[in-house]
Amino acid sequence: MRVSVYRRAHFNAAHRLNNPNLSAAENVRLFGVCNNNNFHGHNYELEVKVTGEVNPDTGYVYDMKDLSDMIKVEIEDRFDHKNLNLDTEEFKNLNPTAEHIAYVIYQILRKKIGKEFDLSIRLWETPRNSVEYPA
Amino acid sequence: MRVSVYRRAHFNAAHRLNNPNLSAAENVRLFGVCNNNNFHGHNYELEVKVTGEVNPDTGYVYDMKDLSDMIKVEIEDRFDHKNLNLDTEEFKNLNPTAEHIAYVIYQILRKKIGKEFDLSIRLWETPRNSVEYPA
Amino acid sequence: MRVSVYRRAHFNAAHRLNNPNLSAAENVRLFGVCNNNNFHGHNYELEVKVTGEVNPDTGYVYDMKDLSDMIKVEIEDRFDHKNLNLDTEEFKNLNPTAEHIAYVIYQILRKKIGKEFDLSIRLWETPRNSVEYPA
Amino acid sequence: MRVSVYRRAHFNAAHRLNNPNLSAAENVRLFGVCNNNNFHGHNYELEVKVTGEVNPDTGYVYDMKDLSDMIKVEIEDRFDHKNLNLDTEEFKNLNPTAEHIAYVIYQILRKKIGKEFDLSIRLWETPRNSVEYPA
Amino acid sequence: MRVSVYRRAHFNAAHRLNNPNLSAAENVRLFGVCNNNNFHGHNYELEVKVTGEVNPDTGYVYDMKDLSDMIKVEIEDRFDHKNLNLDTEEFKNLNPTAEHIAYVIYQILRKKIGKEFDLSIRLWETPRNSVEYPA
Amino acid sequence: MRVSVYRRAHFNAAHRLNNPNLSAAENVRLFGVCNNNNFHGHNYELEVKVTGEVNPDTGYVYDMKDLSDMIKVEIEDRFDHKNLNLDTEEFKNLNPTAEHIAYVIYQILRKKIGKEFDLSIRLWETPRNSVEYPA
Repeated sequence: MRVSVYRRAHFNAAHRLNNPNLSAAENVRLFGVCNNNNFHGHNYELEVKVTGEVNPDTGYVYDMKDLSDMIKVEIEDRFDHKNLNLDTEEFKNLNPTAEHIAYVIYQILRKKIGKEFDLSIRLWETPRNSVEYPA
Repeated sequence: MRVSVYRRAHFNAAHRLNNPNLSAAENVRLFGVCNNNNFHGHNYELEVKVTGEVNPDTGYVYDMKDLSDMIKVEIEDRFDHKNLNLDTEEFKNLNPTAEHIAYVIYQILRKKIGKEFDLSIRLWETPRNSVEYPA
Repeated sequence: MRVSVYRRAHFNAAHRLNNPNLSAAENVRLFGVCNNNNFHGHNYELEVKVTGEVNPDTGYVYDMKDLSDMIKVEIEDRFDHKNLNLDTEEFKNLNPTAEHIAYVIYQILRKKIGKEFDLSIRLWETPRNSVEYPA
Repeated sequence: MRVSVYRRAHFNAAHRLNNPNLSAAENVRLFGVCNNNNFHGHNYELEVKVTGEVNPDTGYVYDMKDLSDMIKVEIEDRFDHKNLNLDTEEFKNLNPTAEHIAYVIYQILRKKIGKEFDLSIRLWETPRNSVEYPA
Repeated sequence: MRVSVYRRAHFNAAHRLNNPNLSAAENVRLFGVCNNNNFHGHNYELEVKVTGEVNPDTGYVYDMKDLSDMIKVEIEDRFDHKNLNLDTEEFKNLNPTAEHIAYVIYQILRKKIGKEFDLSIRLWETPRNSVEYPA
Repeated sequence: MRVSVYRRAHFNAAHRLNNPNLSAAENVRLFGVCNNNNFHGHNYELEVKVTGEVNPDTGYVYDMKDLSDMIKVEIEDRFDHKNLNLDTEEFKNLNPTAEHIAYVIYQILRKKIGKEFDLSIRLWETPRNSVEYPA
């Protein structure tokens, strides 16, 4: 009995989109208002999906308290109320687009969750814009 | 033209998580507050997904009134305002985790929906915790 | 500068509606499926509204971390994953309708929040049913 | 690095469900209140999913401003505040079920989005009824 | 103990905004795309608020099943899947703006709910536009 | 016939909470993670409420297109994708708490909306935290 379980969490952060290998003008052209030098910010809404076999002892795929604690320690404590560009190791040299943030969250959690589970990340940057990794 | 159609419904129920083959202490360790002897409860939000070919006469994959009536009779009438552990046949001997509830709903509806359709169940136990079967 | 601030929280609980001064038949007539002997349950969604003057030092009416901590300790820890009828002092002799739950939450928080603030409670029993106290 | 990006939009429209090759009685039987001669209407909520490789210069799969502008011009301007049956070319001879609307939106956007991207359409006719194409 | 109770419901309808006492050009100027001759439509979301004393026997202000049945019979059956301008008595000679629809719903329900209760109507025409009567 | 109309909008911004008249240590004590030197950010959700008499020619209290255009020009263009502390005149010398942001939005819109209308601002900083001005 293979089931997917989903857990939601959120964090608030500032960021700006910028590629240091491109000119200022090119960055404005590519990223528009998201390139604002002084940053802007979002309430990021995160949904972590873990897929695996149901454990016959518990009836759980994955203990949701363990999963939410892991998300708290690994993701919320790392990114919440932070400036992604300035305050985090992960985005010092990586443009913090929603695509890249989802990818980074996947890489962090992938190391913490056993190989017998599949993992997928959905991230809403706003109620209208979201991404999913892996596709 | 193959399309998926989704119908949402909900039911309110009490439950507790417990494995009678394990000790009381082990049940507390595994299920924490969800093991509370006197039960707790949820507003379960259900989304049923049916996938198939569009009928050229109707432009429908599946008549949504038929689907919502089926969910009403087969799922809501069975589980709404019930104690899943005490009032239902399905969970007398099955721990009513969200994973198992989704699996049971799938088995009930699978028998009612023609084999030419694929079926999938998404179940939210809270706005932050949900499951999907099959994965 | 007088402003209202709102904080949302939630708790999951089992309950049944029953008036011990009335006959079983009368209780069924009044409360229908909500009278189920074995209980049912809800995800209660709570919004606490505090109104007062903005503190010129902080720009806050009320520190939202203090408010959310208070709600956690006083309301969530008391009612979450509980059977309201069996596990709580407050509803041993009070029918746990949404109206009464909002009233009880108001009485608990009113003692913890300074008299210079107005207080109001909104409680959703389901996404479609909610109450507000005081009216 | 293959990622899916999602963009939400909406439009309000009137429609009726009717198959001109069938009798009036048969149309009522098939479509019930949705067959009402004088039309009814919905707030359609649309989610467009585009899947592809992340561009290493931008960190984007697809520029969300370009995508939202495309949805505005191609879908919202075409269908918003319209009678789907009377005011649009697309549904003059096609029954405007949610299945067909999602299919039509897919065909329109498919021509505008490069072949290196996968495309998928989710359309909510009401908060409880939605469809997805391709399945 | 005075409490407000709220019940949500919804209906889908077509309408157009038009004032027959004004010229066609003036109607277009005032109502824009909402004046479309062939109608457009909405999923109307309704919240009915009833305020009164809590009945000591039931712990209810107003039986929510009675209230939801009343909304079903008086409002949903009257307006759901209808063309407000063509299919209803209420809007044959009254422009079906959200303001007027809320007012009409208030008048209908006011006659059905005892004078000891206050009544208020909130109506969402879209997730972004709503009205409340009385103000 | 006096009715309230509500219009929703949103903007994304970075901010930090800080009172320059207090020590760094006192600012950390008061504002915690919200004091982060490098800013954090939010998706602010705004609801503007305008109350007045229904115009008998239009059936409108206030033209919603005019209201949404005004919010676009006066609020979204001013604050969206900005750093409230660094990029705006309004918060150069005013701590950008939700209370103050709602107050500032009220002052801006109050000058644009006729005196015959009442005005109220509701602002969500996160889905769980919101404020209302005037109280």
